[in-house]
Amino acid sequence: MDTPTPRSYDPRTFRALTFHDATPRFRDGSDTPRAYLERCLETIAAREPVVKAFVVMNTDNARAAADASSARWKAGKPLSAIDGMPVAIKDLLETRDMPTDFGCAAYNGNHTHRDNAAVWALREAGALILGKTVTAELGGSHPGPTTNPFDATRTPGGSSSGSAAAVAARMVPAALGTQVGGSVIRPAAYCGNIAFKPTQGGINRGERQATSQSTTGVHAGCIEDMWQVAIEIAKRAGGDPGRMGLFGPAAAPEAVKPQCLIVLESEGWAELDGASKKAFAALMDNIARAGVTLLRRKDHAWIEAFEHSIRDSNYVCNTITAWENRWYQAALVENHPDGVSERLKSTVTRALAMNPEDYRVLLSRRAAAQQCHQALAPLADGVIMLSCPGPAPLWPGDKPGQPLAPRPTGDSVFNTPSSMLHAPCVTMPLMSVGGMPLGAQLMGQQHEDARMTALARWMLQAIAPAVV
Amino acid sequence: MDTPTPRSYDPRTFRALTFHDATPRFRDGSDTPRAYLERCLETIAAREPVVKAFVVMNTDNARAAADASSARWKAGKPLSAIDGMPVAIKDLLETRDMPTDFGCAAYNGNHTHRDNAAVWALREAGALILGKTVTAELGGSHPGPTTNPFDATRTPGGSSSGSAAAVAARMVPAALGTQVGGSVIRPAAYCGNIAFKPTQGGINRGERQATSQSTTGVHAGCIEDMWQVAIEIAKRAGGDPGRMGLFGPAAAPEAVKPQCLIVLESEGWAELDGASKKAFAALMDNIARAGVTLLRRKDHAWIEAFEHSIRDSNYVCNTITAWENRWYQAALVENHPDGVSERLKSTVTRALAMNPEDYRVLLSRRAAAQQCHQALAPLADGVIMLSCPGPAPLWPGDKPGQPLAPRPTGDSVFNTPSSMLHAPCVTMPLMSVGGMPLGAQLMGQQHEDARMTALARWMLQAIAPAVV
Repeated sequence: MDTPTPRSYDPRTFRALTFHDATPRFRDGSDTPRAYLERCLETIAAREPVVKAFVVMNTDNARAAADASSARWKAGKPLSAIDGMPVAIKDLLETRDMPTDFGCAAYNGNHTHRDNAAVWALREAGALILGKTVTAELGGSHPGPTTNPFDATRTPGGSSSGSAAAVAARMVPAALGTQVGGSVIRPAAYCGNIAFKPTQGGINRGERQATSQSTTGVHAGCIEDMWQVAIEIAKRAGGDPGRMGLFGPAAAPEAVKPQCLIVLESEGWAELDGASKKAFAALMDNIARAGVTLLRRKDHAWIEAFEHSIRDSNYVCNTITAWENRWYQAALVENHPDGVSERLKSTVTRALAMNPEDYRVLLSRRAAAQQCHQALAPLADGVIMLSCPGPAPLWPGDKPGQPLAPRPTGDSVFNTPSSMLHAPCVTMPLMSVGGMPLGAQLMGQQHEDARMTALARWMLQAIAPAVV
Repeated sequence: MDTPTPRSYDPRTFRALTFHDATPRFRDGSDTPRAYLERCLETIAAREPVVKAFVVMNTDNARAAADASSARWKAGKPLSAIDGMPVAIKDLLETRDMPTDFGCAAYNGNHTHRDNAAVWALREAGALILGKTVTAELGGSHPGPTTNPFDATRTPGGSSSGSAAAVAARMVPAALGTQVGGSVIRPAAYCGNIAFKPTQGGINRGERQATSQSTTGVHAGCIEDMWQVAIEIAKRAGGDPGRMGLFGPAAAPEAVKPQCLIVLESEGWAELDGASKKAFAALMDNIARAGVTLLRRKDHAWIEAFEHSIRDSNYVCNTITAWENRWYQAALVENHPDGVSERLKSTVTRALAMNPEDYRVLLSRRAAAQQCHQALAPLADGVIMLSCPGPAPLWPGDKPGQPLAPRPTGDSVFNTPSSMLHAPCVTMPLMSVGGMPLGAQLMGQQHEDARMTALARWMLQAIAPAVV
């Protein structure tokens, strides 16, 4: 459990922590959920002083739940395939036995004594709610203390910083994150996780319904655990109100080879560093060599039209969200001026200059981009693109008296497309650059969650990673 | 300010409390918002012991806000047309200076110190947040103590019981309610108010986004105040995330005479009492005599198809809502078994027998009904129907040892159509039966909020009420 050598990540050799392959031993008694949990706690003890993934843990409750789970497995009556799985929860989601600080000083010690919908469902499925993980302030861009498990001088990404880092550091096999702009997929990609951002509304957000393009997603060490966590939640808590919710098989879908994929550049391509472009190109070569047809913007007018429709996805996405948070964050700044960051205050200032008409225009632009995305459905099995703009950037912290770095947890420019399209995506740790993880993601049409998972499963089995 | 003689309501003579006509005197100094507030407080002192509309009030803050408003009007700089208006807030919506009990013992003393989006917007517009009004438990059917202002042995309706009663008792000129099934329009109709349930998402619900067919609505004594409150909120807090939000003129739209209306029976018609049928028939006669063409189900196949699509609207609506509340209410019952009513427990039991597939089927049926409603758009200017199944029923309270009355606040059977259609509606106090109010509502296509308000304004000016 020693800290790995910095920047030594290699997607060909890294072994993530998994759960689904442990459960056969729970059945035959050679292992137990309690012992699995204790191994996680040992890893946490070794890595947490540097990684700083957790805000708070409730090990007493987790151990009691693990013992109950051990008894159920022993009796041959687990509540689900994830009975006994230790799961970490992003600290934006309420938990009845731990406070929820939202990464915001104004909420320090906030304790609602309620479970979020997904947390409630996880408990119903027998999972162990081990602790709350660090989030950037209110799910925005002001970072918490978490460091990247593969280099402590770098960000783990955000806003699901702690969930990404806890999985990457092998502290837990799975963790919940949330994404409004890029807060599930980008930190997962910076940390070498597999992660899933469902179709908008796929997993019930519970009390957190306040924005129109946020989702609850899953970080995991393997695709089997990723899907299992998601579907067990959806079975019990459903999707968001008014949405169909996540559907698909009761266990991770079998691998499916795509015939054709669209390679998307998106807004982030122009600013991308050369090494990351080289890694992505090498990965695309590997995919093409495996017999998958790849289409690009020059190959079809619809693809070019789609690229055009998301040409300023960061602006559209972030401005929609700023308006949706406006009333709430303006009141927060007013009532707790010393309890929020300067980054948040500047977002609120921009939002207060907006009016409902500005917002309606952006909703129309978003709807138009969704139409352009739908038009691609007959062309290919899905879209493949980078999950983040290069490897995790260095983050030395804010400097007093200096202008604030605008995006200390990295830029969501490769994530705002899927967010504004309400499209499912799965990020895969199939590249590294300079010894740091770099992710590629598959994005599908709305409700193709299981299909993207099946394609990702095939990729992870069949495609050689690219190391630059 | 004496209590009126029981069952003496007459829509031809009742004078509601209004605000818009008081503001000219605020400008010339012959009246002030503070003096207006004090008159409201006198009425409350006289009527509240019997009506029991309020859970809690904050008169100190309201008086301070009234004084600030008085100074703004005196300086000729009111923040809006509702600057200084005393408004009551249903106790499902958070207020930073008062607790939010949700009408539920488990939440007794719950104080989040936050304002709901609409409450925040009202304060930004200068309105006085006078107090929190009684709601049926969690917006459901288990009643609070409020009585009908026109007969204390009858229900005021629910779940916006206190907001409806406070306006009807002339305690405040306007109040916010919320509707999932029929919780704005029905209590307004039982109490003789004018009220507005906007298009789904028209007014930002703030933290209360947990169901797919709930809206924040406005109870008022006149149509001018009703519209003004709604549009001032929407200007500042917008609509629900992802929705276009309420739009329309900056003050109540001018009266517009409809050329043609569809008279809807809906599921409730078969069970309706004879006197209410007679009153509604008399009102339709008055409308026809004014030169409005009335179409009924026998007149057009589309109307018959529409009636068919909402033939069990209560079941569709209430079951959708039960599923959407399932995770949350199941956890509440588990954690606070003594803090919730037996009515709620039986709802949760039914919901726990559901699964995501059941819910998806109902969403599809709802979408189909919305299509049938859209098909009516070319036929008429809107739909007219009853707002409630007869006058407010007697409510003697639960009897120990007896089965629980299923709907002590009345049946939402005439309200679930507009709720499941996401359609705007305005209820008008244009009938009475046995000295109790009976409402009729105009329902339009989604986003025809201003148009329905204009038609309602014409009705209120031009159509003689029906008294049976």
